[in-house]
Amino acid sequence: MRIPDHIGIIPDGNRRWAQGQGMTKDKGYALGINPGLLLFKQCEKYGIRELTYYGFTVDNMKRPLAQKQAFVNACIESVDILSKENVEILVMGNTNSPSFPKDLLPYTKRRIFGKGGTKVNFLMNYGWEWDLNLLKTSDKTKKDIVHNIRSNDISRIDLIIRWGGRRRLSGFLPVQSVYSDFYVLNDYWPDYKPEHLDTALDWYNTQDVTLGG
Amino acid sequence: MRIPDHIGIIPDGNRRWAQGQGMTKDKGYALGINPGLLLFKQCEKYGIRELTYYGFTVDNMKRPLAQKQAFVNACIESVDILSKENVEILVMGNTNSPSFPKDLLPYTKRRIFGKGGTKVNFLMNYGWEWDLNLLKTSDKTKKDIVHNIRSNDISRIDLIIRWGGRRRLSGFLPVQSVYSDFYVLNDYWPDYKPEHLDTALDWYNTQDVTLGG
Repeated sequence: MRIPDHIGIIPDGNRRWAQGQGMTKDKGYALGINPGLLLFKQCEKYGIRELTYYGFTVDNMKRPLAQKQAFVNACIESVDILSKENVEILVMGNTNSPSFPKDLLPYTKRRIFGKGGTKVNFLMNYGWEWDLNLLKTSDKTKKDIVHNIRSNDISRIDLIIRWGGRRRLSGFLPVQSVYSDFYVLNDYWPDYKPEHLDTALDWYNTQDVTLGG
Repeated sequence: MRIPDHIGIIPDGNRRWAQGQGMTKDKGYALGINPGLLLFKQCEKYGIRELTYYGFTVDNMKRPLAQKQAFVNACIESVDILSKENVEILVMGNTNSPSFPKDLLPYTKRRIFGKGGTKVNFLMNYGWEWDLNLLKTSDKTKKDIVHNIRSNDISRIDLIIRWGGRRRLSGFLPVQSVYSDFYVLNDYWPDYKPEHLDTALDWYNTQDVTLGG
């Protein structure tokens, strides 16, 4: 079976999940923390080398305060929980903005925890324009793009899995996603089950890899 | 009904279609020309303002010669046929490469044909890295990305429709696609039917528009 090296995770549907349970929208994010850990352990078992979670974006910061506090707290707690594993963590986002959580500053250069192993990237206060903007300072006589964006320590993504039914990237790493296979689950992220990843991997196994060729 | 302003078309599956008919792979491209015209007329009728066809890419030029000749010829003929309509055509691609067809040079600045109207963009000898590379020459004190890439005359895409079953962008306009809804049809492009667009538009009508917010 062909296993992707790098999976991108768009954990969407937290607010719709909360509403479905009769809760206010902001209550959905805390229930998305444990799925992140379970999914990581499943990927580790399968030998997947790199995992990128779409935490929150600059765009998301336009939301109501209660929601912002809830998703920022859930993101901080997710990084904290993953840092107890054998993992190499990188938090990627605009640290020059007041929206960037100070608690995450120690993770903005890749750090090894435990015995190291799986690379885990979290996009936090990430913006695709912010990411690409670094190109403006790079050598224009050279063709290379991937090493000259802010997220240059995040590799090309083989498979993106999105929960919550939307079929769009929503600004997720536009450069690393140019050739990615894109799998969408209708289930909301707090309803994560191991079968979700298994189904996505079974589908990925049936796809060819052309890298645009 | 909510109609997208701008639709991106990834007309994939020409080679698989040809093989399914017992032909060699290169024979599939010519059968993709008429669907392009029919789709344009359908979009014009529905009031869609802009349409971008994924013609061929720098990556595609690694293919066998017979295939390259076949898709380049089909692309040139498609532009010629569309130029008989009321349309504003732009061909976007790397004209500094020997792979760029000379016949298409007159279309590399947007030109009005007939009474004008629908904008139709063709990506020809297009490369996503080539597109983004222009950022390296732009003002680094400013945040703007969309006006500083080579394809800056192509607007944000609301809906991307891909024929041929693959669920990936394959390097298609990474900046204009960051928020696009992505609809995939399993049918091969030469089997285009008006119902395909109708199904995609019905689905698009049920999606929300958040632009990442």
